[in-house]
Amino acid sequence: MSVNTFGRVLRFTTWGESHGPALGAVLDGCPPGIALTEEMIQPFMDARAPGQSKFTTQRREPDAVRILSGVFEGKTTGTPVSLMIENVDQRSKDYSEVAKAYRPGHADYAYDAKYGFRDYRGGGRSSARETAARVAAGAVARLILRQVKITAYVSQIGKDEIDRSAVDFDQIGRNPFFCPDAAAAKRWENLVDEARLAGSSLGAVVECVAENVPAGWGAPVYGKLDADLAGAMMGINAVKGVEIGAGFGAAMLSGEENADPMRAGEGGPQFEANNAGGIAGGISTGQPVVVRVAFKPTSSILTAVDTIGRDGENTQIRTKGRHDPCVGIRGTPVVEAMMALVLADHMMLHRAQCG
Amino acid sequence: MSVNTFGRVLRFTTWGESHGPALGAVLDGCPPGIALTEEMIQPFMDARAPGQSKFTTQRREPDAVRILSGVFEGKTTGTPVSLMIENVDQRSKDYSEVAKAYRPGHADYAYDAKYGFRDYRGGGRSSARETAARVAAGAVARLILRQVKITAYVSQIGKDEIDRSAVDFDQIGRNPFFCPDAAAAKRWENLVDEARLAGSSLGAVVECVAENVPAGWGAPVYGKLDADLAGAMMGINAVKGVEIGAGFGAAMLSGEENADPMRAGEGGPQFEANNAGGIAGGISTGQPVVVRVAFKPTSSILTAVDTIGRDGENTQIRTKGRHDPCVGIRGTPVVEAMMALVLADHMMLHRAQCG
Amino acid sequence: MSVNTFGRVLRFTTWGESHGPALGAVLDGCPPGIALTEEMIQPFMDARAPGQSKFTTQRREPDAVRILSGVFEGKTTGTPVSLMIENVDQRSKDYSEVAKAYRPGHADYAYDAKYGFRDYRGGGRSSARETAARVAAGAVARLILRQVKITAYVSQIGKDEIDRSAVDFDQIGRNPFFCPDAAAAKRWENLVDEARLAGSSLGAVVECVAENVPAGWGAPVYGKLDADLAGAMMGINAVKGVEIGAGFGAAMLSGEENADPMRAGEGGPQFEANNAGGIAGGISTGQPVVVRVAFKPTSSILTAVDTIGRDGENTQIRTKGRHDPCVGIRGTPVVEAMMALVLADHMMLHRAQCG
Amino acid sequence: MSVNTFGRVLRFTTWGESHGPALGAVLDGCPPGIALTEEMIQPFMDARAPGQSKFTTQRREPDAVRILSGVFEGKTTGTPVSLMIENVDQRSKDYSEVAKAYRPGHADYAYDAKYGFRDYRGGGRSSARETAARVAAGAVARLILRQVKITAYVSQIGKDEIDRSAVDFDQIGRNPFFCPDAAAAKRWENLVDEARLAGSSLGAVVECVAENVPAGWGAPVYGKLDADLAGAMMGINAVKGVEIGAGFGAAMLSGEENADPMRAGEGGPQFEANNAGGIAGGISTGQPVVVRVAFKPTSSILTAVDTIGRDGENTQIRTKGRHDPCVGIRGTPVVEAMMALVLADHMMLHRAQCG
Repeated sequence: MSVNTFGRVLRFTTWGESHGPALGAVLDGCPPGIALTEEMIQPFMDARAPGQSKFTTQRREPDAVRILSGVFEGKTTGTPVSLMIENVDQRSKDYSEVAKAYRPGHADYAYDAKYGFRDYRGGGRSSARETAARVAAGAVARLILRQVKITAYVSQIGKDEIDRSAVDFDQIGRNPFFCPDAAAAKRWENLVDEARLAGSSLGAVVECVAENVPAGWGAPVYGKLDADLAGAMMGINAVKGVEIGAGFGAAMLSGEENADPMRAGEGGPQFEANNAGGIAGGISTGQPVVVRVAFKPTSSILTAVDTIGRDGENTQIRTKGRHDPCVGIRGTPVVEAMMALVLADHMMLHRAQCG
Repeated sequence: MSVNTFGRVLRFTTWGESHGPALGAVLDGCPPGIALTEEMIQPFMDARAPGQSKFTTQRREPDAVRILSGVFEGKTTGTPVSLMIENVDQRSKDYSEVAKAYRPGHADYAYDAKYGFRDYRGGGRSSARETAARVAAGAVARLILRQVKITAYVSQIGKDEIDRSAVDFDQIGRNPFFCPDAAAAKRWENLVDEARLAGSSLGAVVECVAENVPAGWGAPVYGKLDADLAGAMMGINAVKGVEIGAGFGAAMLSGEENADPMRAGEGGPQFEANNAGGIAGGISTGQPVVVRVAFKPTSSILTAVDTIGRDGENTQIRTKGRHDPCVGIRGTPVVEAMMALVLADHMMLHRAQCG
Repeated sequence: MSVNTFGRVLRFTTWGESHGPALGAVLDGCPPGIALTEEMIQPFMDARAPGQSKFTTQRREPDAVRILSGVFEGKTTGTPVSLMIENVDQRSKDYSEVAKAYRPGHADYAYDAKYGFRDYRGGGRSSARETAARVAAGAVARLILRQVKITAYVSQIGKDEIDRSAVDFDQIGRNPFFCPDAAAAKRWENLVDEARLAGSSLGAVVECVAENVPAGWGAPVYGKLDADLAGAMMGINAVKGVEIGAGFGAAMLSGEENADPMRAGEGGPQFEANNAGGIAGGISTGQPVVVRVAFKPTSSILTAVDTIGRDGENTQIRTKGRHDPCVGIRGTPVVEAMMALVLADHMMLHRAQCG
Repeated sequence: MSVNTFGRVLRFTTWGESHGPALGAVLDGCPPGIALTEEMIQPFMDARAPGQSKFTTQRREPDAVRILSGVFEGKTTGTPVSLMIENVDQRSKDYSEVAKAYRPGHADYAYDAKYGFRDYRGGGRSSARETAARVAAGAVARLILRQVKITAYVSQIGKDEIDRSAVDFDQIGRNPFFCPDAAAAKRWENLVDEARLAGSSLGAVVECVAENVPAGWGAPVYGKLDADLAGAMMGINAVKGVEIGAGFGAAMLSGEENADPMRAGEGGPQFEANNAGGIAGGISTGQPVVVRVAFKPTSSILTAVDTIGRDGENTQIRTKGRHDPCVGIRGTPVVEAMMALVLADHMMLHRAQCG
């Protein structure tokens, strides 16, 4: 099974390194006849793109997507959609330090242990730059899922959480943090800027809600919708935790508190709570699908950290150059993309079996 | 892709319902020449088996595993290992209530929404009884992984956590809770018994540590070891959250706090912390692999809960009969099994690519 | 990818050895709500079963199928259908010769080279007995494909071909050879009996026609309907060649001769020839799907053949015991089963992508 | 499962249409540390490239491969190798006729039946141009397989076969037909030229031999080496038949004639015949792996053929423009590529399971 491929029926394969000529995704299994242009993908790329505010890395990549195949006369043909993004800002930089020593928290040591050597320029294949390809593929998945509305937002930076009573989805696009709480966004300006100026970094939690998912998507046991979402989210760079619905909080509830009672309603049951996060037994219930994702602080910091060199000797390393003080922010469009890709895949898988 | 199959190179497929004649797993891709008998699997079955104490369901299933294929003269042949467990305690019971109304928190409504009808006897395919097949397959995976030591334990029941300074792995087998902290185990006796007597239920957190995993297992991007573990764990019945290493806690750390510095050591680097949980960039680092899994309280409670019937009408349902007051307890051997299956799969996948 | 699993969306996994306690298939992805009983599968088992005439092996296996899961109240539930067939006629036999020396043409040497040892009793996993599990799974696939009519027959035994002008499908069930030409069936009685009495064996060609396959099943490039059929058929024991439509004959035609001209017709085009065998570009055209499969003579013959022993020494071996003088005959229901499984899989895959 | 992806452990995905901007392959699972440059791939591209003699299509494509990822400092890194080939000779042409009517024997009608419409320019995704991507991927696979020698050649054009006693592999590169028999190559000049001048076309048979494949590659039942080869070869454009070893000829042999006796030899058994084509029970025996592939005559001919239009009306179509009079010729490097890809995949799969 291809380790650079994701999905069951709607499948995409990504390729490319941070500092190679380009990176891309090949999306296979896309239904035919869907209107698709580069312009329909670009806004999602722009949301993820670096350099949009002082709170994200200053690397400047236009992240312009080219569609190389699978579209004819503006519509998908049902054959593979090849999406390519050229790497533009490959600033010629001195990588000799990273080549020689392992940055703690990065994949440097693990890649060397696995493959014997690595492309050390900008993290190579382990760079979060790979997620640009996911966002491009996810933009197509959204077109397949037309009725589903997917919204991700940052709910916490460091220890500072949003006020859930103040959540307003209209706020998400109005601040550089994908924050649905205007007051929190205001506070985060200082918080993130301080980390940035100190050469430090912050973790974050991103939540994602998918509305209008019909009941019945998902599958038993090893094709559970929540299991596939968990794998999808944990596979995003810097993610260390995933929750569905009440998540770890559910471990502290009693059965009575955790119940999601149902009442008769039009067009299906009305649920009086959503601790399940819209999924029971691995299958959607018709409630909003709710996922929460923990991003660690980026490991690239200006403080020197103890490490070892390629020859095993003790040394220290500081990460110079342009970095995100809080990778969770730019992770938000990636979480949305993975949600879209998992849901579109399960929509089609459900159709295969149940017609 | 088969939704009842798990794995990449070492793959297993499970089948069977709670109240059918039997259930089983077919494990494919197992290396040849591994000594394997039914007796080597049975202790893991017994650890998961119901009816072992008053703190778990009183359903009595011997869960005796039969090996039907893939073993010759006591050794695996490299062909599929078929493992079958007969269902013995299919108490003839009145399921008419469950047939007519959906139990909130259970898969009843979702299965009906997907398939149009369901085998409602004991939860059918969505029953946690399916996990017996995983434990059987996991027991074989452990034999493939001989050098790796996998230990899972309950670290929290309800809101009551273990004292991490008191953790002693030798305690795990000495109490009915897989608890490594003797004092906590003592407290939990009352806690769980109260829930049991009240017909209520409790959530739990299970932690799992895999020691002696060499650096280099795992793969980039969509075959990440942590992503596969997250999918594996979230696919266990009643699980709502998964963390690797510092998990959601990492979201609250600074980059400096979250760093896992390295120092030169014999046989590879010595890490001064393990916030990463033994995985960086999706690939093992040689540190212990640490996973934490949140189990919700079982939805089967004696209190009547609002729900709807198959015809959409309002009604209420109480779950009668024998149930686990805290499913996380018996989930512990299942977490170990999934850890073993993911690791053995990645060991073999690594060997395929890197020799 | 599981090497004992077949299919893309409708997937089945088989397990079991010739002389183990049982063998079986787990069919996953089956649509829900299909009426299914053991009685509906059994006739296909009987067609493949040994011991039905003197022209096939005298091993006597009732090949009674048990459905262990996935069916409730007589209908498929959408969860895995586990089918088990017990091995009854495990005549206690002296396998010491086969254990020590490799039977040429059998898998003995290759299995030892791969796995280091093998289950030598009756061929173990490489026994054609495995095909019983395929026939059981195929019987379910036929129920999914209700409108499609699948017919396989023997068109040639040794060098003796049927007369195509005399083909009458009604004859197929009236002779022990699945022969659609009554005169050929008559001739084959002598032909096969002579081989049987001489302890020799004969090859055969089996043809299979699937009628009422709608245009549009199949997929480009690596999911071609003909490629999947070729893989499916070549994977049947003793098969050495597969043709679609005009097959190798097409290599001798000119472009003009090979054309399948179309004329306007009701319900789609009328084709004036079917050299394509119902598939163009890997996708069905609405014409009958036509496959031809070459079976080698069974390698089990009474004549001593030069071989080597497990320790590499020169020796000879004769295959004693009960064997098919012409394995192609009993291969006929297996070819039908594989046709049904490939078509049902592609029907569902098409539905996934194209709705 | 991705229908534009091939392989089990070493997997490649191709994308691109005949007249789009480019086409390509993403090869995943490639072992790290293999020396790889564009120059090492190009000779295989050139062998397949059109316009090399008057016996193949006059379309002129340089088929220059670019490596976009997965290689660092001249060696594979173990991450996806993205290979891209730009389409250069997209002669602006009038496709209005092909857009309106279905070319018999082409995929036109089937694609429309499946997807509702199609990219009709030059055959779109169903064009044999896709095979350029396979050849590029196959060139990498050969580097993985270093000890294996793969040789394909044309053994028959139309009804004219080579003389097997005159086969000399050194001749293959000395004529425009990949023909190992100098006299046959001479005859074919007239044969193919006549077809070309008449606007007709010819079928062909391509044989492929892989030497030095060790015993033990392959797998039981649904991962058989011969089954995977059959699927791989039948999936090449215009292929209608596949044989392993004696193939359809084996159907006419007796068990005695078909036996491949073994004698003790150095480094494994010496076989006295190779009717099995190097594979028994789906697993390699150490003998040369021998596959034979039948190509139909290309359906693009100058003679008008009856067909129907998109609206179902009767019409006729002639294929104008540049075409191969015998597609089997340029299919030869594609057969080699698919052989290499299947073998490298099974080498790695074997290593996964058996170490």
